[in-house]
Amino acid sequence: MKTYISVLGLLSLASTALALWPIPRNMSESDKVSLAPTHITTGSSSQGCPSLQKLVLRYGDLISGELFTPPDLYLNGTVQSIDGSVSYLEVNIRNVSDFIIDLDTDESYELDIPVSGKAQLNANTYYGALRGLETYSQLLTNDGHGRRVIRNTPIKISDSPYFPHRGILFDTARNYYSVDAIKHTIDAMSYNKLNVLHWHIVDSQSWPVESKLHPQLADNGAYSPQDRYSYSDVKDIIQYAKDRGVRVIPEFDMPGHTYIIGKSFPDIMSCLNVQPKWSEFAAEPPSGQLDITNPKALSLAKDIIKEYSALFPDSHFHVGGDEVNMNCWEKSNTMQDYLAAHSGATVNHVLKQFYQGIHDTIIASGKVGFCWEETIFHQNFTVPKGTAVQSWIDSDSVRKTVMAGYNAIASPYEYYYLDCGHGGWLSDVVGNSWCDPYKSWSKVYSYNPLANITNPEHQKRVLGGEVALWAEQSDEHVMDSYLWPRSSAHAEILWSGPIDPKTNKQRAPIDAITRLHAQRYRMLGRGIRGAPLQPLWCAQNPGNCSA
Amino acid sequence: MKTYISVLGLLSLASTALALWPIPRNMSESDKVSLAPTHITTGSSSQGCPSLQKLVLRYGDLISGELFTPPDLYLNGTVQSIDGSVSYLEVNIRNVSDFIIDLDTDESYELDIPVSGKAQLNANTYYGALRGLETYSQLLTNDGHGRRVIRNTPIKISDSPYFPHRGILFDTARNYYSVDAIKHTIDAMSYNKLNVLHWHIVDSQSWPVESKLHPQLADNGAYSPQDRYSYSDVKDIIQYAKDRGVRVIPEFDMPGHTYIIGKSFPDIMSCLNVQPKWSEFAAEPPSGQLDITNPKALSLAKDIIKEYSALFPDSHFHVGGDEVNMNCWEKSNTMQDYLAAHSGATVNHVLKQFYQGIHDTIIASGKVGFCWEETIFHQNFTVPKGTAVQSWIDSDSVRKTVMAGYNAIASPYEYYYLDCGHGGWLSDVVGNSWCDPYKSWSKVYSYNPLANITNPEHQKRVLGGEVALWAEQSDEHVMDSYLWPRSSAHAEILWSGPIDPKTNKQRAPIDAITRLHAQRYRMLGRGIRGAPLQPLWCAQNPGNCSA
Repeated sequence: MKTYISVLGLLSLASTALALWPIPRNMSESDKVSLAPTHITTGSSSQGCPSLQKLVLRYGDLISGELFTPPDLYLNGTVQSIDGSVSYLEVNIRNVSDFIIDLDTDESYELDIPVSGKAQLNANTYYGALRGLETYSQLLTNDGHGRRVIRNTPIKISDSPYFPHRGILFDTARNYYSVDAIKHTIDAMSYNKLNVLHWHIVDSQSWPVESKLHPQLADNGAYSPQDRYSYSDVKDIIQYAKDRGVRVIPEFDMPGHTYIIGKSFPDIMSCLNVQPKWSEFAAEPPSGQLDITNPKALSLAKDIIKEYSALFPDSHFHVGGDEVNMNCWEKSNTMQDYLAAHSGATVNHVLKQFYQGIHDTIIASGKVGFCWEETIFHQNFTVPKGTAVQSWIDSDSVRKTVMAGYNAIASPYEYYYLDCGHGGWLSDVVGNSWCDPYKSWSKVYSYNPLANITNPEHQKRVLGGEVALWAEQSDEHVMDSYLWPRSSAHAEILWSGPIDPKTNKQRAPIDAITRLHAQRYRMLGRGIRGAPLQPLWCAQNPGNCSA
Repeated sequence: MKTYISVLGLLSLASTALALWPIPRNMSESDKVSLAPTHITTGSSSQGCPSLQKLVLRYGDLISGELFTPPDLYLNGTVQSIDGSVSYLEVNIRNVSDFIIDLDTDESYELDIPVSGKAQLNANTYYGALRGLETYSQLLTNDGHGRRVIRNTPIKISDSPYFPHRGILFDTARNYYSVDAIKHTIDAMSYNKLNVLHWHIVDSQSWPVESKLHPQLADNGAYSPQDRYSYSDVKDIIQYAKDRGVRVIPEFDMPGHTYIIGKSFPDIMSCLNVQPKWSEFAAEPPSGQLDITNPKALSLAKDIIKEYSALFPDSHFHVGGDEVNMNCWEKSNTMQDYLAAHSGATVNHVLKQFYQGIHDTIIASGKVGFCWEETIFHQNFTVPKGTAVQSWIDSDSVRKTVMAGYNAIASPYEYYYLDCGHGGWLSDVVGNSWCDPYKSWSKVYSYNPLANITNPEHQKRVLGGEVALWAEQSDEHVMDSYLWPRSSAHAEILWSGPIDPKTNKQRAPIDAITRLHAQRYRMLGRGIRGAPLQPLWCAQNPGNCSA
C-alpha cells in the first residue's frame, strides 16, 4: 500500500504510475490489481438523462474496443496476480438538466475504484461525468495476458480543471478542413479534456461558411463548392462538440484579414490584393481590409456578427482585430478624403469608431467579446469590461491584459503556435519563417500562463489558453501529427495546472514523458495519428533517454 | 503553336505549363487540347512480357480512377474547345527480358502524343516504360467539364534521369514501419520517379528483421513479435519495389549503432547501454558497439553480411560505419588488454582491421560496398574501389569523395535530413535538436549535388542522393507529411538535373512551385497525404504569393 488514505482524509498527490493524461489534480492509489469491467451503468437518479445514457454507451463501446498496453509496461509490466474484480462502474450526476458547455461549466468529478465491487463516478454535471469517464477509460490496461485490468487499486480521484478555457485554434480559411476532420479533432480534444474549439473560420484566403444574409460571401469566397460549411454542417459540428465537452467559438476576423469579402463587395474594401508589393499592406498575401471610412463596411461587419451570433450558441464571439495594416488605409483615397473632411481625425480614430461599432453589436447580440491583443495594445481601444483578450505576440501580454482588468487567453506564438517550424512558405523563399522553430511538446509544456502574475485576482482573469494551428502549411491531411501530442502537452498544463504539487515547481517534461508516450499510443489506437516523441525503445525503457 | 519542333529535330526546353513532376528533360508541346484515352495497350513486340502487361493494366486502372484538376487551373483553366481525340496509348519496349532494377538500369523513354490518333510510348526497358507511363498519367487532367483531356498537344517527350541513384533513406529501427507503410511509400516514390529505398533496417534501438542464421537477433531485438519483418515480408517488399522501379538497398550498420545485438550477444559488445552518461559513448542512447577486438564480433558481422547479401538482390550492400565512438573502445577492458598485447597498435588500427574484414566479405559476397563518409574521412580507411560513399556531415564531402576516386551519394543533413526540425527529443530537453531547423521543400530543392565539382569525370562519380527520414521522431503515422512533397523536390533535382536548361542556372523554387502544388494534390488523390505548401489560394492564384 503506497499512499492510500481514506477519501475523507487528504488525497495524495498525483502519481505517474498510471497512464493518465492529463494527470488528475488529486488522486490516491495503492498496489492491488483488479479485473476491470466494461459495463457502465447510471445511478437511479441519473436515469432520466438521455444524454448521459448516450455518453455511457459511447464510453462502454470505447472501453470494450480497447485493450491498451502502455509502452513502459511492455517489457516489465506484466501482472503476476489479480487481487480482485470490479463489478461495474456506476455513474451519477447531481444535475441531470445542466447540459450547457460554456466558460462556467462545472467539469469536476470524483472517481472511486475499489479492489472489488462497484466503482463509482460522481459529478455535478454531464460534463463532469464525461471527464470522469475519460479518466476511467484511461485506467484500463492490458495485464500482459490479454485481460483488462485496473492497476494500483484502490484508487480515489477528485478532479477538476485548473483553467476553464482550454482550447485549440483551428484555421479553416487558409486551407479547408472537412466536417469529418473537425469532428475527428473534437474526439481527440475530448481524450485530453480540452474544451474550446476556437474556429478561425474565415480569413483573407477563403470564406468557407454559408451566409444566409449575404450568400455571395461563400459563393464567391469558398475554394470550391465542396469546400464549404452549410448551416447544417455548423450545427452538426456544434452538437458533436457539445456532446464531447467542447465549446465552439467562432472567429470572424475584422477589419483586417478580409480580402475575401472583396470578391463580393469590392466597393467596401481598401488595398485589395496589391501585387507584387502586398507586404506594404498586409502580413501575408492577399492584402485587403474593410474600408473603415465606409458605413457600408461597418454595416456588413454588424450583419456578420448578428448572423453568426445566432448560429453559434457560445457566450463568446471572437472578432479578431489582429494585424491591421495602417498603411493600407493611409494610402487609400477614401481615407484621405475622410481625413480631409474631418479635421483632427486620424486613422486610429476611425479604426476605434469601427471597433466600437463591432463591440457594441457583440453586446447587443447578447455575447461576450473576444479579440486579439492588438485591439487593446496597438490600437489602444478600450474594449468592454468582460471581453476576453487573446495574446499571441508578447509572452508578457497575458500579465498586461489582466493588469488592465480584462480576461486573458494565452496563445504566445513562441510556445503555442503549432504551425511554426515548417520554413518560410512564400513561393520564392528558401529559409525559415518568422515564427520558426517548431514548438516541440516540451516547449509547449514549459509555458506557464500565470508567469509573473502573483495577485490572485489577476490570476483569476487568466481564463486559460489555446494552442493555434494556423493553416498556411497545414490541412486535414497533416493535422493529426501537427496537433498531437503537442496539444496534449498544452491540455495537461491547463487542466492539471502549471505547478506540480509534488515539487511545488513548474511541471517538467521529464516527469511527464512516460505518460505522454502512453497517451500518444492510446490515441493511435483511437485513430488519432499523432507524432512519436522518441524511439519506441525510449518509451519501453523509461529513464534511459535523458540528456 | 508555341515551340513544337519535329521529334527528329531539337526538342524544346522543358515547360512549366503542364503539371508534370519531375519535369521531363526534353519536351515540346503546342496549344491544342485532346480528349485522352484511358486505354493502354502494348505493341506486338512487347506482348511477350507479362510484367509489362501487368504494368499497363496497373496504369490503366490508375488513370481510369483519376480525374485531376491542378489547382492553378481551377479558377481560369477550363477548356473552351476540344481539338482532337487520342485513341489509345501504345507501349513498346525494345528489351522485353531486361527486368532488373539496379544502378545501371536504362530508365529512358520517349512519349509522343498527337492531337488525334494513337499515342506512343517507346522505351528500351520495362523501367523506361514505367517512367513514361507515370509521365503519361500526369498529362491527363480534367478539362473543367469532367472530361479527361491532354492539354498542349501535340506533345513529344524524350526523357531520362540525370542521376542514376535517387533515393529515400527509411529507418525502421528507431520506430517500426509496417510492410504496408513501406509499400505505400514505394508507390509514392514511383509517382516521383525515385528509384532507391535505402532501408536502414536495424540500429541500436531495435532489430526488426528475421535472421535465419541467428534467430535471436530479432527474437530479442524486435520491439514486439508484431514489429518484425519475416523473410517473406522482405521478399514481398523487394518484389513490390522492383515492379515499381525501386531498388531496395539494405543497411546493416556496423560496428557502431549496434546495442541491440548485445541483447543476444552481450559478450561481443563494448559500452553496452551505459547510463546515465551514454553521451560519452554514443551519439544517442542506448550506447553499444561491437567489440572490435573480439574475433566473434567480426565473425557475426560477416554472418550478417553473408545472410542478408543473399536475401537482398541489389548490387549494393550498405554497412554503415557512421558515428563510431572511439571512447567506447578506449575505455573497454578488452581493448586495453589488446593494446597492451599488441605493441604499437591503436584503436584506429583495430577498427581498420574490422572494416577490412567487413569490406572483404562484401566483395566475397558479390556485392558493391556502400558506407557512410566517416569510414574514409574520419577513420581514413581505404575502401575498395567502386564503393559508394554516402556523405551527410559536410556539404563539401561529395566533392572530396569523388576527388578521392570513390562514388558519392549525397545526403547532406543541412538539406536532406527530413526528420530534422522537430526539436530535441531527449526526455529532459526543452529546445532544438542538433539538426534543426526543418528542411523546407525549397531548401531541399536548392541543393545541387554537383556544387563545386567541375571535372566531368568527377561529376560522373556523383551517383545521386538520398533524402533521409531518420525515425527518432517519426513512424508510419507521420511519414506521409514528413516525406511528401519534400521528397518530390529532391526527386526533381535528381531526375531532371540541378540546372534549368531554360536559364542555364540552378533550378529555383519559384519556377517549380505551381507544378509542385499540382504534384502534391495529385498524390493526395492517390492516397499519399503530403503536407500543403501554401494556402490553397496561392495554388489557385499562381504568382500572387511571392515575397
